Amino acid sequence: MSKPKKTPRPKAETPKGFRDYFGSEVSERKAMLDAIAAVYHRYGFDALETSAVETVEALGKFLPDVDRPNEGVFGWQEADDEGKGDWLALRYDLTAPLARVYAQHRNDLPTPYRRYAMGPVWRNEKPGPGRFRQFYQCDADTVGSGSVAADAEICAMLADTLEEVGIPRGDYIVRVNNRKVLNGVLETMGLHDAGQRDAVLRTIDKFDKVGAAGVRELLTTGRKDASGAFIDGVGLSDVQAEPVLAFLTSKAAGVTQTLENLRAAVGDSEAGAQGVDELQDIAALLGAQGYGPDRIDIDPSVVRGLGYYTGPVFEAELTFEILDEKGRKRQFGSVAGGGRYDDLVKRFTGQAVPATGVSIGVDRLLAALREKGRMNSTTSGPVVVTVMDKSRMADYQAMVAELRQAGIRAEVYLGNPKNFGNQLKYADRRGSPIAVIEGGDEHAAGVVQIKDLILGAKIAESATLEQWKERPSQFEVPRVDLVTKVREILESQA
Amino acid sequence: MSKPKKTPRPKAETPKGFRDYFGSEVSERKAMLDAIAAVYHRYGFDALETSAVETVEALGKFLPDVDRPNEGVFGWQEADDEGKGDWLALRYDLTAPLARVYAQHRNDLPTPYRRYAMGPVWRNEKPGPGRFRQFYQCDADTVGSGSVAADAEICAMLADTLEEVGIPRGDYIVRVNNRKVLNGVLETMGLHDAGQRDAVLRTIDKFDKVGAAGVRELLTTGRKDASGAFIDGVGLSDVQAEPVLAFLTSKAAGVTQTLENLRAAVGDSEAGAQGVDELQDIAALLGAQGYGPDRIDIDPSVVRGLGYYTGPVFEAELTFEILDEKGRKRQFGSVAGGGRYDDLVKRFTGQAVPATGVSIGVDRLLAALREKGRMNSTTSGPVVVTVMDKSRMADYQAMVAELRQAGIRAEVYLGNPKNFGNQLKYADRRGSPIAVIEGGDEHAAGVVQIKDLILGAKIAESATLEQWKERPSQFEVPRVDLVTKVREILESQA
Repeated sequence: MSKPKKTPRPKAETPKGFRDYFGSEVSERKAMLDAIAAVYHRYGFDALETSAVETVEALGKFLPDVDRPNEGVFGWQEADDEGKGDWLALRYDLTAPLARVYAQHRNDLPTPYRRYAMGPVWRNEKPGPGRFRQFYQCDADTVGSGSVAADAEICAMLADTLEEVGIPRGDYIVRVNNRKVLNGVLETMGLHDAGQRDAVLRTIDKFDKVGAAGVRELLTTGRKDASGAFIDGVGLSDVQAEPVLAFLTSKAAGVTQTLENLRAAVGDSEAGAQGVDELQDIAALLGAQGYGPDRIDIDPSVVRGLGYYTGPVFEAELTFEILDEKGRKRQFGSVAGGGRYDDLVKRFTGQAVPATGVSIGVDRLLAALREKGRMNSTTSGPVVVTVMDKSRMADYQAMVAELRQAGIRAEVYLGNPKNFGNQLKYADRRGSPIAVIEGGDEHAAGVVQIKDLILGAKIAESATLEQWKERPSQFEVPRVDLVTKVREILESQA
Repeated sequence: MSKPKKTPRPKAETPKGFRDYFGSEVSERKAMLDAIAAVYHRYGFDALETSAVETVEALGKFLPDVDRPNEGVFGWQEADDEGKGDWLALRYDLTAPLARVYAQHRNDLPTPYRRYAMGPVWRNEKPGPGRFRQFYQCDADTVGSGSVAADAEICAMLADTLEEVGIPRGDYIVRVNNRKVLNGVLETMGLHDAGQRDAVLRTIDKFDKVGAAGVRELLTTGRKDASGAFIDGVGLSDVQAEPVLAFLTSKAAGVTQTLENLRAAVGDSEAGAQGVDELQDIAALLGAQGYGPDRIDIDPSVVRGLGYYTGPVFEAELTFEILDEKGRKRQFGSVAGGGRYDDLVKRFTGQAVPATGVSIGVDRLLAALREKGRMNSTTSGPVVVTVMDKSRMADYQAMVAELRQAGIRAEVYLGNPKNFGNQLKYADRRGSPIAVIEGGDEHAAGVVQIKDLILGAKIAESATLEQWKERPSQFEVPRVDLVTKVREILESQA
């Protein structure tokens, strides 16, 4: 085990764009994933866990964001006997692996195949503040059903999930749009040139940011952006741009009126009419199950993913206001999105397989709950048994063994016990509710000291001398009553 | 969204050595990880989740298996502005990232720092049958405590964990050895040449496979292996080899005798005596908490990791017999291992930080439980509401909404409903306990048909005509009693 000592010490750093998650950050996310999985499971979805690594060939280039650079994945080449093997890469989402799994195992899977998946995905992008290159996704998809009942079900499940994790009704809205309606609009406009259609789709994607007036400028003569730079327009006339804007702004007070507006926007297009019918069916199916427009609404202003999906698209937004970094009020915004995509499996098999699904941005949803103070803080540090006499470690270990057997989180202080102050500092840093002390005198008398650290901290902070006298934060109890007294104090703290 | 169609279709395959996990495979592993985490948490350990990606520099070459090739990780180079950035790699275990985290965050972490971590790790090795390049580890470590109380605690926690996940007392043993005792043995032997010491360590590592006689041959003149190939010996004399063999075989019926044998084996070596003292302390600490040698035993024949760790080493073995692929009885073997390693953090900071920990091989432990039939099979398929009339989808969705609100897993059949036989086949493939049927007649009469698929399958398999008459597997109930009747049948199946 001799080690060369010449090389400089390695840096103890995460790679750029990656981070560590500690304690309650881990357990809070886990609790949320568990809650989401329970809803998905109740809806009949089965778990699937694929590996982090896929062949680049299987992953393909199916990222929802069309502006992404091709080199958006972490990839490497396998070394085979000739030194040149397959290119492998880390998955960038959970949908591409699902398409591969369905194509690979379709003869053994039920049809339709409903699966949920949760886990990290990786994006080889420039990291920014709060933007990491590894993050969690949590998806549910139905593969092999072309029925809008499958889309409606995903929307209902999304609403149920948000409520299950702690977003109350009224604080979220699931908005539904349909790519087919947009196709119908483009058809009535006589826009048959593929390049121009793509340009219109890309423009629509900016509706969230630039609004109706901005989209009108971008569709026609161009627009000066906030930085003063001029963005060329698509070159449509004002009249030609009108149906697109009518589509984007067709949301009315009631679903019936919204659907009428859309029927007007698609004109004679059959595809467009079919798209409106689908939205109508979705609204009817959801209405029959009690999901009204206060929870799930038809809203043609949803544009995210409209260029990627082939049918209905959905987006869940949190509607409560938070303060942004500059102290301005703004809505929290999107936490989940999805839609119907019928081409993913076709890449592998040549046969189109209808599919629809949703992806929840778990980390954003966690941030929202923290923002609203709706996360029950899990600061349940362990009971710390202090070490007054190193040679009596076995006795202290026996105490924690008793506490643990009673289901109480507990540990012996395992650092250097010389400085007792350090032991209490450690307990403080761990967020310990209770410290147990048994010195030589206590041992001889068959008692232990039990310190209520939560109450102790409160008293130190604010109490008057009178209160201090009335409510002691340290108790001497017989050794045999250790577990009982600890439990009593823990209950008084809860 | 125009796609070039010239390229050949991608293959729908996992990369070599990777696999997918479906349904109960995922949920059974999750249940086990949850159970383990609960024990770790009760012992005062905090969760830590690092990213899958680390710099190669931070990972270093600290694999426990000294025979591993350097290229055992999946790595790639970051592209920075000059095209040449850091080398990154997927973590190969959870210990190297812990060392990096502790070095990076040591000023903010409590000392000692107890953390647990669970998740996949990746090894760039030749895959074999049952050997995958991504697998789960589940670790707990105490960093910053040199006390053997920390080692003893890890052993106790390991025993508790095995019982918690379903391995009963008597079916496992945690065996403890100590590298320092071996160091003492080598010292008394006068073996000061580093190369020869390493050769002896490597030989000891084969004790599991070749036994005492084999180790004696390998330490002296060499040995012919099963394939007929001759392995050179280390070149010790029989007399020189004796203390090593005495050490390996010093296990006696009682702990006291084992420790006496070890004291004899280390002779005058101070390091060796210290090692024996540590084992004695560990046994005493564990004994005081009720962990006798039936659960945790001092056993110098544990050699796995002896070359890697610097103090106590532990290994958990399952002692029940299973049949191997050739139908021969053999013990299931090792499912967890660990020990004390005091040099990992030193790489980064220059300061030695004592640390001890354990890693559980979750997939092997799952295999063991399946082998023993101790996995409660989670074949809880959803109640399937069939579709008799496509235009009444909203009614069927309302049924599943009611069932789900009652906490019952349920779904509407979302495939093509034309062929009713396909719907029942689907329910069968999903492992559904119940199918619900509501055709036009039923709807008019305000009733539904509820089919007990579990009982139905049993009757079809084995029942006589008499029994069939007595216990119908299909019931007609008022629509309003749907949830009540479904729950009743589910309870009768449980």
